[in-house]
Amino acid sequence: MNPGAQHSDGPVAQPLRSDAERNRGRIIAAARTVFARDGLNASMASVAREAGVGIATMFRRFPTKAELVDAVFSDRMGAYADAVAAALADPDPWNGFVGYIESACAMQAADSGFADVLTMTFPTAKVLEARRNEAYEGMVKLIGRAKATGRLREDFDPSDLVLIHMANAGVVNATGDAAPDAWRRVVALMIQSLEAPARGSLPDSPGHDALYKAMLRAGQTGAAAPPPGKGG
Amino acid sequence: MNPGAQHSDGPVAQPLRSDAERNRGRIIAAARTVFARDGLNASMASVAREAGVGIATMFRRFPTKAELVDAVFSDRMGAYADAVAAALADPDPWNGFVGYIESACAMQAADSGFADVLTMTFPTAKVLEARRNEAYEGMVKLIGRAKATGRLREDFDPSDLVLIHMANAGVVNATGDAAPDAWRRVVALMIQSLEAPARGSLPDSPGHDALYKAMLRAGQTGAAAPPPGKGG
Repeated sequence: MNPGAQHSDGPVAQPLRSDAERNRGRIIAAARTVFARDGLNASMASVAREAGVGIATMFRRFPTKAELVDAVFSDRMGAYADAVAAALADPDPWNGFVGYIESACAMQAADSGFADVLTMTFPTAKVLEARRNEAYEGMVKLIGRAKATGRLREDFDPSDLVLIHMANAGVVNATGDAAPDAWRRVVALMIQSLEAPARGSLPDSPGHDALYKAMLRAGQTGAAAPPPGKGG
Repeated sequence: MNPGAQHSDGPVAQPLRSDAERNRGRIIAAARTVFARDGLNASMASVAREAGVGIATMFRRFPTKAELVDAVFSDRMGAYADAVAAALADPDPWNGFVGYIESACAMQAADSGFADVLTMTFPTAKVLEARRNEAYEGMVKLIGRAKATGRLREDFDPSDLVLIHMANAGVVNATGDAAPDAWRRVVALMIQSLEAPARGSLPDSPGHDALYKAMLRAGQTGAAAPPPGKGG
C-alpha cells in the first residue's frame, strides 16, 4: 500500500514535492548528457526522452530552455570563472593568460553543450550570466596585466577571447572523435599569434556589441526546438 | 493544346526530357540558395520545397545528397582549385600562400554550404572530389615553395589548412550577420602564427588520415536529413 496515495492533504503533499525534486534532478542529469553530446541545439523533447519523463513534466520543471541551461551550466561557468581567478594568481601574467586560454579551450572540447554556452548568451539564465560576468571582469584584468608585461600584443581585445572560442568550437565540432586532440594544435597556433611583438596589424575587432548580438542570436536559435530557416 | 501529351511515343519523349532538364536546373539553383543559407545539414525536402518540385521528382533527379552536392559545388571547387593555381603563379611564394588562405577563407565566409564542403568529404561526388584533389596537389606544392623561402614555419602540415578552414567555419557560423567580418581578424591571427621563425613548438598534427575520417563522418552526417544522435 502506498501511504502517499491515501489522502488528498497533509502527508500527500510530501511525496509530490519529492517527485518534483526527483524529476528535476533526472532532467538536469539527462540534459547534461544530451547537451554534452549534441550541443544546445538538442531539443527539449530529446532531453525529456533521455530523462524518461513526459514532455509536460519537462516543461513544468523548466518552462524555457534558458532555465534548463541555467541549471545545467551554472556550475561549469563557475569553474570557468575559477580558472580565470587561478590565472590571475599566477605570478607571471603571460603564463597565467596562456594557461587560462588552454584550460578554457579544454573545457570547451570536453563538452559540446558548454562549448555552445561560451559562444551564446541567455539573458534570462540569471545565475549563469552572473558567473559569466564575473569571469569576464577577471579576464579584462588578466589581459591588462599580460599587456603590461609586454608579452601580449597591444591590439588584443577582450572580445578576441570569444572569437578564439568560436574558432575552437569549429575545430572541436568538425573533428570530434576522429581527431579528438586536433583543437590543441589550432589553439597553440592562436596563442603564438598573440605574443608581442605582433607580426603585423589586424583587421578591426568586431567589438563587444556586435559579438554580444551574435551570441544573443545564437542563444535564441539554440533555444528553439528545430533550427529555424531564415526565410523563403 | 499540348503537343507533348498527344502520343505515348515519338515526340512525347522530347518535352519529358526538357521537363527533367528544367527540374534539374531548378533543383540546383534552389540547393545553391538553401545550402548557402543553412549549410549542408539542410534537408533534401527543404531543397525540393525551395525549388517548387515534389520530393519524388527531387529524388528522381538526385537519388543521394552527394550527387546534389556534386552538381552544386563542383564549379565552386573548380574556382577554389583556380585560387591555388593563381597562388602558385605568384613570384613571391609566401605572398602566394597568404593570399590563397585569405581568398579560400573568404569563399568559405560567403557560402555556408561551401564552408561545409571544405571540411567534409563525399567520396561519391566524383567531379567535386577530383577538383578537391587537384586543389590539394597544388596546395602541397605551394606549401613546399613557401617553406623553401624560409617564410613559412617548417612544422606546417598540409592538413593544417583543413584545421584552419574548420576554425574559420566556427567563427563564420557563430557570428553570421551580426559580425560578418569577424573571421578576417581570426584568419589574420592564424596567418601571423604561421610565419617563420615559429614562436614555439606545436602539438602533433592529427595527420591526414584522422582528418579524412573526420571529414568523411561530417559528410555522412551532412548527408542525413535529421542530424542523428550518437546513441541512447
